[in-house]
Amino acid sequence: MSVLPGQAKVVNIGLPMFADALRAQGVAVEHVDWRIPAGGDLTAVATLSRLYGDHGSAVDGANAEVLRRLDSGVPQLVEVSTAQQAVPGMGGRTLLHCGPAIDFGQVCDPLRRSMRAAVVAEGWATDVEEAQRLLAGGDVALEPANHHQAVVPMASAIGPTAPVFVVADREGGTRSYAPVNQGPGEVAWFGRDTDAAVERLRFLRDVAGPALTRVLSSAGPLDILNLAAQGVSMGDDLHMRTQAATNLLVRTWLPQLAELPDQQRGGMARFLSGNHLFFLTLAMAAAKALTLWAEQVSGSSIITTMSRNGTTFGIKLAGSPEWHITAAPPITDALYYSGYGPEDAAPDIGDSAVLELVGLGGPAAAGSPAVAAFLGGSMADARRATEAFRQICVGTSSRFTLPPLDFSGTPVGVDVRRVVELGITPQITTGILHSSSGVGQIGAGVATAPLECFTEALAALDARLVR
Amino acid sequence: MSVLPGQAKVVNIGLPMFADALRAQGVAVEHVDWRIPAGGDLTAVATLSRLYGDHGSAVDGANAEVLRRLDSGVPQLVEVSTAQQAVPGMGGRTLLHCGPAIDFGQVCDPLRRSMRAAVVAEGWATDVEEAQRLLAGGDVALEPANHHQAVVPMASAIGPTAPVFVVADREGGTRSYAPVNQGPGEVAWFGRDTDAAVERLRFLRDVAGPALTRVLSSAGPLDILNLAAQGVSMGDDLHMRTQAATNLLVRTWLPQLAELPDQQRGGMARFLSGNHLFFLTLAMAAAKALTLWAEQVSGSSIITTMSRNGTTFGIKLAGSPEWHITAAPPITDALYYSGYGPEDAAPDIGDSAVLELVGLGGPAAAGSPAVAAFLGGSMADARRATEAFRQICVGTSSRFTLPPLDFSGTPVGVDVRRVVELGITPQITTGILHSSSGVGQIGAGVATAPLECFTEALAALDARLVR
Repeated sequence: MSVLPGQAKVVNIGLPMFADALRAQGVAVEHVDWRIPAGGDLTAVATLSRLYGDHGSAVDGANAEVLRRLDSGVPQLVEVSTAQQAVPGMGGRTLLHCGPAIDFGQVCDPLRRSMRAAVVAEGWATDVEEAQRLLAGGDVALEPANHHQAVVPMASAIGPTAPVFVVADREGGTRSYAPVNQGPGEVAWFGRDTDAAVERLRFLRDVAGPALTRVLSSAGPLDILNLAAQGVSMGDDLHMRTQAATNLLVRTWLPQLAELPDQQRGGMARFLSGNHLFFLTLAMAAAKALTLWAEQVSGSSIITTMSRNGTTFGIKLAGSPEWHITAAPPITDALYYSGYGPEDAAPDIGDSAVLELVGLGGPAAAGSPAVAAFLGGSMADARRATEAFRQICVGTSSRFTLPPLDFSGTPVGVDVRRVVELGITPQITTGILHSSSGVGQIGAGVATAPLECFTEALAALDARLVR
Repeated sequence: MSVLPGQAKVVNIGLPMFADALRAQGVAVEHVDWRIPAGGDLTAVATLSRLYGDHGSAVDGANAEVLRRLDSGVPQLVEVSTAQQAVPGMGGRTLLHCGPAIDFGQVCDPLRRSMRAAVVAEGWATDVEEAQRLLAGGDVALEPANHHQAVVPMASAIGPTAPVFVVADREGGTRSYAPVNQGPGEVAWFGRDTDAAVERLRFLRDVAGPALTRVLSSAGPLDILNLAAQGVSMGDDLHMRTQAATNLLVRTWLPQLAELPDQQRGGMARFLSGNHLFFLTLAMAAAKALTLWAEQVSGSSIITTMSRNGTTFGIKLAGSPEWHITAAPPITDALYYSGYGPEDAAPDIGDSAVLELVGLGGPAAAGSPAVAAFLGGSMADARRATEAFRQICVGTSSRFTLPPLDFSGTPVGVDVRRVVELGITPQITTGILHSSSGVGQIGAGVATAPLECFTEALAALDARLVR
């Protein structure tokens, strides 16, 4: 005969509804948020058992080295050049675009427009209609920027004459590239192909690029992540918000900007004054220099490439050239400009998610009031975004620290094992482009990376280690 | 016969040691932090009874209007001129200095040096020895900046040719003035009278002033507190730390800076690039414009002037021209540069405490990682500084909001009743100057305003209301 105890203390594991029901009856419950690993996918559970078990210490060792590289590298801006002069393998009629490789027929509308604007700016076509014919006819080679040690933001496509930042990490020996940011407004990287968008590309090539080359040769190499770290302590996440780091850079370079020749100085000053996004591509190039060093480590479960082209979303693990690709996700938790909604939105796009791999963007959300505004409005919402990354990351940054979390470091090193085990994929704060009309940015929100490619990457790592 | 209860719940009011003793025995205690009002000063208690009682609603009404003015005024930078052209009553051989009125014989060493540097820069003497003789002989009139609608930071003394910001609050109809900040380093406002310090004053007069006049006439009026509010959300307290607001201003003015003539542009760019303190005097002038409007309200218990000259510390209440003055306090909780300590420190100095009266400085500490470093190192230390102001202030700012406190406003409107009742005086984060050697700044820390002058101001208000 069993006897029920007079006083019971309840621990509920898993489904919260049982805890809720007891609480509703006034019973104290300790709830444990446990979920079935990998959502109950038995193949994934078996893979995880190997990757945490027999292969666990080898993977952890590789991850520690990846983390060290991501956290300790010092990427410096060493040159401002052009894509054709600086980027390996960039020449002829080639465009570097965001995301995984793609045929023009599959390219989404905003990126198509950006490609057309670049083709016109390069002088390969006289107008966007002719550019469309060239692109559709296969007369322009399309190359993922990521295949050329480069990263490009949003719906960017850059031609050979586009100015690029050249970033070098001395200890890692890596070089990376990113275009000079086009700024806000009527611009190709927001999916516009108007005359003004083309004109901005020409301004970058003819004025901003040469001016920045001159500024940098006079100012000397720039420690990008030193400024980024100051930016984080001043409310930047360095992805959605780059205001503080941009302003720091402008004051740093002010003496050199003042010495530019007359034909560059005024235009450059107006461009920088109106461009709070200027630092974005510098931070991206720095992040790419770190991930290029980190990806040389084999046998790691840490993600070193994450990028999207508006059609597909792809990731790569350190130590492997293999892409794991799935459809680009929609952007949720979004704020739209007046008159627009989810039905107008293109899927998630751009290489900027490289920032989320090095402790910036989402991992730095808790320090950013501006990002909080997009995540629900309170700093608690922003903290949750950072804590979500903490659950799937192997370490914390020693340079990016969050004042509202009493200077704790941002999470660094997204571990595909944890992603699949917990079913928590990286959340990327990003802009939203119109899917068809060519009006450019229509809002901003959060893209949740699709789980499928992470599960595939996990299986591929397992296969590599078993071999 | 009395029976002790079997189970007691304890509330302890006042001295915490009783609560501590019970807690040490494992007894749950609710402690109430109650203190004897006004430290048991019966005269002050009687005064407070009248000012909270019979006169309470009149005082509260006046305070509401003062708070409205401090919180809603929109001070704009409308002109950059010289002291002699802009500041009423400024002419001849006159220096405007920080703090209450003072005879040269009583002036502390850093301010003496600053005065000598100004006398040489004005061309009234060829060297600092001659300047000393002129000052000691009474050949230079010394006037508190505050008597001329002006405020000057640290050990500042400015002559007629010094460039000043002219700030106007349209609704209040007030005008205020503050000198162009001299920047860090070997500078008179840090109590230095070297050739370099004099040279900096000449640079301000000959280059920076005319350049800023040109910049402003091209850029148009500047809403100072709009930038300051952005600065607060980026980690500035706008007193000890003005980095974010300075950088925002530099990017805002970049087009106009780029158009300066050759003989001004390079020098101005180097000056601004090396001066993270540039925004300080703009914020001070804006605060002064607000307090000048607020002080026109009679019968209020809110402080509208708080300033120090390194010898004395003085405050004024809204609605009265009367100063309440006591000895300048030492600076505590200080961090010193290597080789210096409290024995080297001059007392608290400067008009910058006007910032603490409008919701900046100490009231904004909770948002500033940089200020936290001086208050103990953690963000909790910074929060305590803000919360201390909240206890003595009548309201909160609607424009200065603190992200780490989930966007709550900074405390505004220091009420002398609460100061005396609680024995909590404003704490001012400030730099520390050497008391005698002329080496300038030797550290930074917190100055706690002396209670005595607040008690005197309370009595004076009571006397005015009873009359």
